[in-house]
Amino acid sequence: MRENAFIHNVLKPLAVNDYALGLQDDAALLEIPPLHQLVVTTDMLQEGIHFLSDGHPADIAWKAMAANLSDLAAMGAAPHSYQLALGLSETQDSAWLQAFCEGLQAVQAQFGIGLSGGDTIRGCAALTISITAHGLVPMGQALRRTHAKVGDALYVTGTLGDAALGLALLQGKISDLPTSLAEFVIQRYWRPMPRLEAGVALRGIATACMDISDGLLVDCAKLCAASSVGAVIDYDALPLSEAGRYVQDRHPELFAACISAGDDYELLVSASDLEGIDSLVMKDGTPLTRIGTITEAGNGVQLLHADGTPVILPYAGYEH
Amino acid sequence: MRENAFIHNVLKPLAVNDYALGLQDDAALLEIPPLHQLVVTTDMLQEGIHFLSDGHPADIAWKAMAANLSDLAAMGAAPHSYQLALGLSETQDSAWLQAFCEGLQAVQAQFGIGLSGGDTIRGCAALTISITAHGLVPMGQALRRTHAKVGDALYVTGTLGDAALGLALLQGKISDLPTSLAEFVIQRYWRPMPRLEAGVALRGIATACMDISDGLLVDCAKLCAASSVGAVIDYDALPLSEAGRYVQDRHPELFAACISAGDDYELLVSASDLEGIDSLVMKDGTPLTRIGTITEAGNGVQLLHADGTPVILPYAGYEH
Repeated sequence: MRENAFIHNVLKPLAVNDYALGLQDDAALLEIPPLHQLVVTTDMLQEGIHFLSDGHPADIAWKAMAANLSDLAAMGAAPHSYQLALGLSETQDSAWLQAFCEGLQAVQAQFGIGLSGGDTIRGCAALTISITAHGLVPMGQALRRTHAKVGDALYVTGTLGDAALGLALLQGKISDLPTSLAEFVIQRYWRPMPRLEAGVALRGIATACMDISDGLLVDCAKLCAASSVGAVIDYDALPLSEAGRYVQDRHPELFAACISAGDDYELLVSASDLEGIDSLVMKDGTPLTRIGTITEAGNGVQLLHADGTPVILPYAGYEH
Repeated sequence: MRENAFIHNVLKPLAVNDYALGLQDDAALLEIPPLHQLVVTTDMLQEGIHFLSDGHPADIAWKAMAANLSDLAAMGAAPHSYQLALGLSETQDSAWLQAFCEGLQAVQAQFGIGLSGGDTIRGCAALTISITAHGLVPMGQALRRTHAKVGDALYVTGTLGDAALGLALLQGKISDLPTSLAEFVIQRYWRPMPRLEAGVALRGIATACMDISDGLLVDCAKLCAASSVGAVIDYDALPLSEAGRYVQDRHPELFAACISAGDDYELLVSASDLEGIDSLVMKDGTPLTRIGTITEAGNGVQLLHADGTPVILPYAGYEH
């Protein structure tokens, strides 16, 4: 399939919004509603580094988009549009491209975002996907990393470690998970659900927010640095899925390596408005678990058992 | 250099604008002035495909940015900000990164654009640069490809074929260019000057506009398809640099292969307001040359000598 046919047959159905100009101009043309800011984020993924090369193309599309959408969620933004830069190696044929774009279509329908434009290269050394996602947030209401205050409570959405367990399973490092739990962690690895609704709901409640795509500890350290604070995290309070608990009981070392390994597209949130948080949990069903407290900067990020002894993890998170 | 140090030492000086949030959040936060639209374009480049791998890192940075800025120019947009996704192989060390970012600094200073955010990968199979550039245009004034009309005059900015001659020279396919001409074509290959001022000046004058980064004929065919028209181009009217004329005289076959080979970040423009165009040429010094006429769609794009005989080029342009 040559570029023109690829654009016309496969990409155009993803770009039905006015701003994409039918993918026939040099650029897209976005209108931003009055009193809004545009939130812009970029994630670049390469096979073998960020995802398994033998993944289903629709799963690869989902994961690449979810990584970007999670950054929008962390800012409290609503998804708007995205630019797709696709570097194809010799391995991706027409059927692969079709399936990849079906994955994009699914994620577009799920999260309300549309293709605005992009670029395609053939003959790349390895499959490379770079997405720039655009979101909208009312003026001045974006969530930031910079305003966590000493004494704030620290929360996380969802459960931790599932994606790393999914990867461990796909790599054959663990094999005794019951089928339903195995399917769950693989889903968490390939099809993470960015916390877009939680991000929007946390506007005006969170003092700081970010996603923990690189791992809880690494990312908490970044949030603390941006806010000039420290944090104490209660290891025994970390929210686990049934799969997480299953592995924690039977393979504690593997579990410890997964709990902060990254690829969990969950949000780390600080807040002093505990009633506001309770209301989100109780009324909206937002899965927020308190995991610790913001402290003075000098303390760094401490991961402690309930009895106050420090927890040393074999792997603290993803360094780019 | 680890990611945090790289961001702090090398990238942060490129991101001094408020919207970049000091590169310490999940995303950038752009404010669009009232009554403006945001123009968004993405170009992905990989070494060995889009540029010579042994290029100076500052030249590589310039070329990658220029490819994006040229798309903004084609829409009549003023540069605003850009997202940088950088896929580094094992070859790029700290000195390379420093020089690359000095190149970005130079292009930022030249064209008035700032880094808003991005992503970096290490361990890539080949150096890959994906930039998404943002520009601003007053509401409704963006130049498009879609409104060329039969009878419009067809223009091009600057001169054609120089970048391809530069590449031919760097690849050893030509060796007898006088030094000053050799330096000129190498500059045109590595440091193209996107036609941003011309793009802005053409608002309200051009009926259609695009850049000819893929080559005059390929890109003219795209403009014609988008406008449902055809075009006749006068081969003997194509604007040549002194270097182009030199090679045309001595190596006519090589020259013919270069004239429509792409990488010329010039604008192709249709207009019926010939006085408006003349005014740009005379008063503003915009280098616009009339090269043909828009015709009925059925004619396709015809490249003719002055006597009406068709010109067959050995290479019509870049197919992605």
